[in-house]
Amino acid sequence: MQSAASHDLAQRISYHGKPQLISVDQFDRGSVDELLQLATRMEPIAQRRQVTRVLEGAVLGNLFFEASTRTRVSFGAAFCRLGGAVCDTTGFTFSSMAKGESIYDTSRVMSGYVDALVIRHPEKGSVAEFAQATNIPVINGGDGPGEHPSQALLDLYTIQKEFSRLCKPLDGADIAIVGDLKYGRTVHSLVKLLSLYRKLHFRLIAPGSLELPLELVELLREREHEVTLWQSPAEALQQADVIYTTRIQKERFVDEKMEAYPQEFQINAALVNSVCKKDCIIMHPLPRDARAGANDLATDLNHDPRLAIFRQTDNGIPVRMAIFAVLLGVEQLVFRDLKPASWRGPERVGPDDAAFYGIS
Amino acid sequence: MQSAASHDLAQRISYHGKPQLISVDQFDRGSVDELLQLATRMEPIAQRRQVTRVLEGAVLGNLFFEASTRTRVSFGAAFCRLGGAVCDTTGFTFSSMAKGESIYDTSRVMSGYVDALVIRHPEKGSVAEFAQATNIPVINGGDGPGEHPSQALLDLYTIQKEFSRLCKPLDGADIAIVGDLKYGRTVHSLVKLLSLYRKLHFRLIAPGSLELPLELVELLREREHEVTLWQSPAEALQQADVIYTTRIQKERFVDEKMEAYPQEFQINAALVNSVCKKDCIIMHPLPRDARAGANDLATDLNHDPRLAIFRQTDNGIPVRMAIFAVLLGVEQLVFRDLKPASWRGPERVGPDDAAFYGIS
Amino acid sequence: MQSAASHDLAQRISYHGKPQLISVDQFDRGSVDELLQLATRMEPIAQRRQVTRVLEGAVLGNLFFEASTRTRVSFGAAFCRLGGAVCDTTGFTFSSMAKGESIYDTSRVMSGYVDALVIRHPEKGSVAEFAQATNIPVINGGDGPGEHPSQALLDLYTIQKEFSRLCKPLDGADIAIVGDLKYGRTVHSLVKLLSLYRKLHFRLIAPGSLELPLELVELLREREHEVTLWQSPAEALQQADVIYTTRIQKERFVDEKMEAYPQEFQINAALVNSVCKKDCIIMHPLPRDARAGANDLATDLNHDPRLAIFRQTDNGIPVRMAIFAVLLGVEQLVFRDLKPASWRGPERVGPDDAAFYGIS
Repeated sequence: MQSAASHDLAQRISYHGKPQLISVDQFDRGSVDELLQLATRMEPIAQRRQVTRVLEGAVLGNLFFEASTRTRVSFGAAFCRLGGAVCDTTGFTFSSMAKGESIYDTSRVMSGYVDALVIRHPEKGSVAEFAQATNIPVINGGDGPGEHPSQALLDLYTIQKEFSRLCKPLDGADIAIVGDLKYGRTVHSLVKLLSLYRKLHFRLIAPGSLELPLELVELLREREHEVTLWQSPAEALQQADVIYTTRIQKERFVDEKMEAYPQEFQINAALVNSVCKKDCIIMHPLPRDARAGANDLATDLNHDPRLAIFRQTDNGIPVRMAIFAVLLGVEQLVFRDLKPASWRGPERVGPDDAAFYGIS
Repeated sequence: MQSAASHDLAQRISYHGKPQLISVDQFDRGSVDELLQLATRMEPIAQRRQVTRVLEGAVLGNLFFEASTRTRVSFGAAFCRLGGAVCDTTGFTFSSMAKGESIYDTSRVMSGYVDALVIRHPEKGSVAEFAQATNIPVINGGDGPGEHPSQALLDLYTIQKEFSRLCKPLDGADIAIVGDLKYGRTVHSLVKLLSLYRKLHFRLIAPGSLELPLELVELLREREHEVTLWQSPAEALQQADVIYTTRIQKERFVDEKMEAYPQEFQINAALVNSVCKKDCIIMHPLPRDARAGANDLATDLNHDPRLAIFRQTDNGIPVRMAIFAVLLGVEQLVFRDLKPASWRGPERVGPDDAAFYGIS
Repeated sequence: MQSAASHDLAQRISYHGKPQLISVDQFDRGSVDELLQLATRMEPIAQRRQVTRVLEGAVLGNLFFEASTRTRVSFGAAFCRLGGAVCDTTGFTFSSMAKGESIYDTSRVMSGYVDALVIRHPEKGSVAEFAQATNIPVINGGDGPGEHPSQALLDLYTIQKEFSRLCKPLDGADIAIVGDLKYGRTVHSLVKLLSLYRKLHFRLIAPGSLELPLELVELLREREHEVTLWQSPAEALQQADVIYTTRIQKERFVDEKMEAYPQEFQINAALVNSVCKKDCIIMHPLPRDARAGANDLATDLNHDPRLAIFRQTDNGIPVRMAIFAVLLGVEQLVFRDLKPASWRGPERVGPDDAAFYGIS
């Protein structure tokens, strides 16, 4: 078992005193840096060079009431990398909730079977309701238009890791955020986490009515960051160190008449090569819509080492491992009894990965 | 490997000579008590204080052709707690059976891949058909209006454990069963198991046409239990030691016109506080329908320590572990090489759990 | 880690230099025999007499975009038997691909989470597209009308194992293939693998317009096999050592007017007992359609030891274990640190299994 001091991070970020991650509001600058340092230590395991069995015997309940592949597999694989086992539920059709079972009951029942819950649900506030009904660790995997804290954490981790590679400080950086800033929950959570840093310049580039909610703009200004608003990317991106793009969250709104971004909003090779810095990074929470007319982040950037979207998803594993380890109190035990992986993995995961991938 | 004597329980409860659990009829008083004593020994592992890897390398096939979350995850988590791995299948859409494959073929094919099968299927008798086609362990996870033996076993285990806590004997107890007694398969199976005890008083409280089938009433009388029938709960519950409530099994019938219970059938705080014993226990197989007008077991009892519904579901883990251990012949090996769990769990699983939860 | 020499098989069968199994074309006679010898060595583990944990810490991504139970569970169970963990995805509804995500993105993202991918997708060529986007092991679990290489390999393994039991050589054997030879991808892949052997006699028996594609007939003749075409089984089967039957692949075509085989195409006890050799074997890739009028492989053969269909599916485990072991580079490490299985399995998996089952 671990000493009381090592549980200090879990206590500092706790949600109503419980080891649960519902919102990025649970973090301050110190605790988020500490969590992401732990994620860095997880890299050799996440990259399958080493194996730990620290959570052997533990079971995760991965309750996905809403469509997802990436997030569900990312959390499940992260838990397996810690030695645990995973029970998945997907959708509503097969669930007791289709028979009128309350969130309270579902949460309490599942909590008797598993050691932690990851929950994705289409209604804002629903995951907090699950969390209230149980004392076991609960992680918000996305509650509709609400939050998706692990995504924001892996986004921030990605920025830190890239800046470290580029020998740039994060304080004072220039961050461009492009697209649907109104409904993009990953944008909202990332903005809140970035606001913990110092003297950033946020360039908000949204089409028409999809602007960042005013309260978030005000939060950034209260914390003494510079915020500028732009109508299109071409003007805005020259100084950007980070270009964070999103897709139109069509499934989140009914009133907006927009189906896809205007053409000028597409981040593509022509635009990036003509205006962007040589050491900028381009991010996207994925999935990106490859269909014609969607004008989402372009595939002609796939060979550009500035495209960081797959480094982002790869980073989901060490970050989610760190979250599990902290909430379950094993963050120090993880690193005892490591053994080398018996199988061989490729040097680079993807054929288009930049040469610096995988070095950590 | 274990000695011949330790397999004696598996042989005594065997189904046509095979290690399969299809019906509660497979038990007599001695064998059910022995199984539930084994479940008691599983508690430290079920409560995640200890870890066993006894079934490491074993694989469970969890074949759920019908909607369920709780039962599937409960069986899956129980198998993981023994160190095994789980392969789930849900529904018919993705299955070979949608291409006309017979139960016989599906069963024999799956049996070549896994070490045990849990099967839930909407047709009565279907699981027995799966069991006939294979020699590997098969557990009936519910065959339509037929049986759900592990539910009845965990219900009985719950009653025994609660009575033990309350220092009451089970023989001679007063058992009220409320609701849809006609289609409630968990009620049928539980009544059969309880009939193995002595001198119980069964109070059957069903609305209108939803009475307990006559053959079960006759079984109880043959075994010298007292059986009284009631039209509504208020009159019947004063002496009850156990109040077992059910929901209307709408999905099981087409002819009944009933959509929900009449208001007077709802077990709620007002009723319980006015008529019930201070040391009674209130049970329900779940899910309970929280929607307005359903009149299912009320949530205003959530803070009442007599509400045992979550202790019931928690008990599903040690009981299902015991079933797996017996059918796979590892019931003695489980307790060698136990190690402490590396992660920390909460003292009480749920914030509304009574103070005596978790002490075993 | 293993010596360079032991990776030689992975290099010889590699797909564009990567440890990926997309098509049976990747094999020559030497490499397929070597893979199947490795499968033979896996039998004690596949039959649950021994346990290995060689892939402990590894995670498989089992991406099934199309209906399947058997193949998904077979691959999943095989990976668990090697000590690994499995993350499943089924269908399109829950996937990012429903939001327009490209195959390239899905593949690269998943490759950052798991150590190997098994993919089944309804479009021919789709799995090759997944494979191009990643450097990790990818196994084609079936790409629509394209290939299903692991099925062909386990079919060939079955033939070799049965012939070994019957003390017959495979070179020079008489192979009858019956049914939908036009759309049956398992037939196409098996024919290609069998063409690597010598002096076989292929008897192709297809109704109407469902004949084996001409290019495959020509391949067989180029490789000096005898090929004869037949209109119905009764005339063709007398000399057959192997009778490989298929079902009509209705889901693969829209133009054919055929709904089911003509009655004379059904392989049943009457036909087999009247014309077939006493030591022939009868195979089918399953599922077989048990519905009236389908005229698929008959159930009245279930007690005939010549019916090898369940030995075929059982063989899927050692063959898939061998594939995983080679692609992940652990084929020698598997056999160190084996331990006996702690649980007991039945002597014969199925009650109708012939007496020689399970002896290897």
